[in-house]
Amino acid sequence: MHQLLNADDGGQTVLERVTDWGLIGLVLLNAGAVVLESVKSWDRRYHPVFASIELVSVFIFTLEYVLRVWSSAEDRRYRRPWLGRLRFVLSPLALIDLLSILPFYLSFGLFDLRILRVVRLFRVLKVARYVRALHVIGKVIRRKRAELLVTLGVLGLMLLMVSSLMYTIESEAQPDKFGSIPDTMWWGVATLTTVGYGDVFPITPAGKLLSSVIAVLGLGLFAIPTGILASGFSEQLHEQHAADAAFSYCPHCGHKL
Amino acid sequence: MHQLLNADDGGQTVLERVTDWGLIGLVLLNAGAVVLESVKSWDRRYHPVFASIELVSVFIFTLEYVLRVWSSAEDRRYRRPWLGRLRFVLSPLALIDLLSILPFYLSFGLFDLRILRVVRLFRVLKVARYVRALHVIGKVIRRKRAELLVTLGVLGLMLLMVSSLMYTIESEAQPDKFGSIPDTMWWGVATLTTVGYGDVFPITPAGKLLSSVIAVLGLGLFAIPTGILASGFSEQLHEQHAADAAFSYCPHCGHKL
Amino acid sequence: MHQLLNADDGGQTVLERVTDWGLIGLVLLNAGAVVLESVKSWDRRYHPVFASIELVSVFIFTLEYVLRVWSSAEDRRYRRPWLGRLRFVLSPLALIDLLSILPFYLSFGLFDLRILRVVRLFRVLKVARYVRALHVIGKVIRRKRAELLVTLGVLGLMLLMVSSLMYTIESEAQPDKFGSIPDTMWWGVATLTTVGYGDVFPITPAGKLLSSVIAVLGLGLFAIPTGILASGFSEQLHEQHAADAAFSYCPHCGHKL
Amino acid sequence: MHQLLNADDGGQTVLERVTDWGLIGLVLLNAGAVVLESVKSWDRRYHPVFASIELVSVFIFTLEYVLRVWSSAEDRRYRRPWLGRLRFVLSPLALIDLLSILPFYLSFGLFDLRILRVVRLFRVLKVARYVRALHVIGKVIRRKRAELLVTLGVLGLMLLMVSSLMYTIESEAQPDKFGSIPDTMWWGVATLTTVGYGDVFPITPAGKLLSSVIAVLGLGLFAIPTGILASGFSEQLHEQHAADAAFSYCPHCGHKL
Repeated sequence: MHQLLNADDGGQTVLERVTDWGLIGLVLLNAGAVVLESVKSWDRRYHPVFASIELVSVFIFTLEYVLRVWSSAEDRRYRRPWLGRLRFVLSPLALIDLLSILPFYLSFGLFDLRILRVVRLFRVLKVARYVRALHVIGKVIRRKRAELLVTLGVLGLMLLMVSSLMYTIESEAQPDKFGSIPDTMWWGVATLTTVGYGDVFPITPAGKLLSSVIAVLGLGLFAIPTGILASGFSEQLHEQHAADAAFSYCPHCGHKL
Repeated sequence: MHQLLNADDGGQTVLERVTDWGLIGLVLLNAGAVVLESVKSWDRRYHPVFASIELVSVFIFTLEYVLRVWSSAEDRRYRRPWLGRLRFVLSPLALIDLLSILPFYLSFGLFDLRILRVVRLFRVLKVARYVRALHVIGKVIRRKRAELLVTLGVLGLMLLMVSSLMYTIESEAQPDKFGSIPDTMWWGVATLTTVGYGDVFPITPAGKLLSSVIAVLGLGLFAIPTGILASGFSEQLHEQHAADAAFSYCPHCGHKL
Repeated sequence: MHQLLNADDGGQTVLERVTDWGLIGLVLLNAGAVVLESVKSWDRRYHPVFASIELVSVFIFTLEYVLRVWSSAEDRRYRRPWLGRLRFVLSPLALIDLLSILPFYLSFGLFDLRILRVVRLFRVLKVARYVRALHVIGKVIRRKRAELLVTLGVLGLMLLMVSSLMYTIESEAQPDKFGSIPDTMWWGVATLTTVGYGDVFPITPAGKLLSSVIAVLGLGLFAIPTGILASGFSEQLHEQHAADAAFSYCPHCGHKL
Repeated sequence: MHQLLNADDGGQTVLERVTDWGLIGLVLLNAGAVVLESVKSWDRRYHPVFASIELVSVFIFTLEYVLRVWSSAEDRRYRRPWLGRLRFVLSPLALIDLLSILPFYLSFGLFDLRILRVVRLFRVLKVARYVRALHVIGKVIRRKRAELLVTLGVLGLMLLMVSSLMYTIESEAQPDKFGSIPDTMWWGVATLTTVGYGDVFPITPAGKLLSSVIAVLGLGLFAIPTGILASGFSEQLHEQHAADAAFSYCPHCGHKL
């Protein structure tokens, strides 16, 4: 577990650990509630349960948020009383905390309720504070930023040109499905990613030929980001493993060395 | 074959080898019988044959199980007469052996017959005792446990959020297919894994845009476990190869060194 | 940005940079216009806007082209007054520049208008001058040319033989979909690339068996170009990174060393 | 081209080269003829052309075969007059040569004509003699034999168990599509390889859940052979490249060193 979670840090008191695990549990309970609430039959039967979970969660998360903002001044990074707190409020993790309680308060106003209910699911991002994995993903993406941007750009260019070609070829035979370049892009994505739902496919011989060439060539190009991410991930985990090994524990007292 | 099977071990007598290969053959015969029995026309015509195979197999597997439990006390690991045998009974391979005969005896009771008939197919796991490959897979998964858990967790999180977003966008246009978040997850899995059966796909422009972004970005993330497993596999086989080479045979007498 | 674009070169004046970024912007505006113009409802409402963008773009791109050809004589590579300019006109980047204005002038003649309108989208290739990424892709493909040709050839051979086999098996059961080898190849590509639109699939047991074997074995073969491209890409970026690091900037004056 | 073809060998006379390239051309012409002949409308119109190509090809290939068998005795490997020739006839390349003329002679007998016509397409395998790439693929598969067998075995086992589970879950809801374990395997292959034609998919919640889990987990396992083949391919090409470099040409006279 040590490799996956930050919550298991060595220097925590028992109370801190209980609080952390309690909050993680509450976040997961919330995620489950949002998912089940979206099923009509469950919502009809257990509406009071879901409403109570919501009420209690918002109360606890609000309390958590206030305390976090208040105590942020003790953190080295946000030491100045007001400006420091403001900077903490604008940090990504604090914004997630805010976003997970704001919809509730906004729902008393004039906003559309249904969207707000689903936005609640973004509360699951609160676990980002505890899950090391998300930090790893973030670092991998930052580390391979240049390569990923390059390939995404090339893929976008390719999609654009392929879709415009296909539009020229197929729009007459199937004006409802290949009627414009944006419409044809829906086919392009389905083919290049090999999802192939089957709602849109060429029927003319020329369209089928182009589709075949694109599927084969596209497979190669679309797999490049995959390769980049995979290698970045393995490098990152390898480095972290080495760092973990270097930063070891005393065999006698169990303290960090 | 030496690389694939444990059955070919150097230190076995001819009788042991014959028994091992006989049991492997019986397991494969059983697998074939279960598969063919599920085809109605075959079952109608050859029912007595399948029933005989079942009867003989259960008899032999029961005998094997009893003998294995009895003789387990001679193994160093389970030396104590009763407690050792109990510990052997609870070991994974012994549990598989038990599971492959238990359904037959339970079917005399009040349990649903059809499920029991299929559970019989899990007898194929009995070959795990002889097939080194399954040990390799097991070791690879254990070796890459942390990375796999991390990515599976992230993928689960991503699936959850993507499905909830899609639910908000598409549930009005297609209430029968995107009617709840769990329903929408079926679309999410089909898209992220690029299976794309074609039974569920977005029809609104916003839904198509989200689906496209997810298919492209998801391809990268969903391929990470693949990369991890592939590299783990090649590392494992490489190490084993090195170990095999180090543990060589005398060129004069053919004995292990 | 330095890693992605050539436009950011150190030795440029402010005017040069403004021109470069202006041209990139114009190219992207053009791409957007072509895409939106293909949507009927947009075209009806904003036709004058699209026409104006076209007119202004062609004017500027023509001016750019004339100036580039004129000034090419100052480039070391094309120093001779007329022969040098001719050689510049035939270089790939200059041909793209020519292709992005030619359709406009041809549309006054007797050519089909619709195709010319889409050919305009190939103007996006003008950004190739500024985007380093396309150079990288080009280098990767050149570097792995031999491997890619080998695998593409093998894949083509495999597709040919698999489709002819499937044609023999399925053409009687589904004469409309597997009626000839070229028709069956459409199934072959959809299966080997795992796109699987779902418009063509075998229904006979023998066809399903062949399709299954091909899907599994083909997965492996079709992924080889992917692996080759991915490794070529990572090697290329690695080398470039090393070259960038070696070709560093003076910490005092900011000039290249 | 040197890297792709064996035909370009240094020690060949002009006549040998012309013969080799002529035979390659004839093989490709034959492949094209078989493919086009399968299209009814082409066959009706150009039947005499296809028949002539067939006749001439069989004549030349028969001549080639007789000459090859006759002259094989001069090869070091098949030196003995009769036994050597017999051993040559049984070598893989000679068998392909025989298979590409035999169907023609058999079609005068009582065999089904349509299958024989398609078997002719296997003549394309005659290019194996000249295309180095096929040797490379062969070597890669031999080099990674053990790993490939292991994973294919595990995948087969997984497919068997997954299909039997799905059969238990879905056979009642969709008896026409999941009516027996072999039928369900068609779904299993489509899902595990992510082809997803869309003709068979689960409709019960339990079936969808199982399908989702399998698609995700299966993706990882099914990609292992891919990874093995890709790495084997790159190793093989790397070694060959090194060998080519070591076996270089004299800079003065152009002869091999």
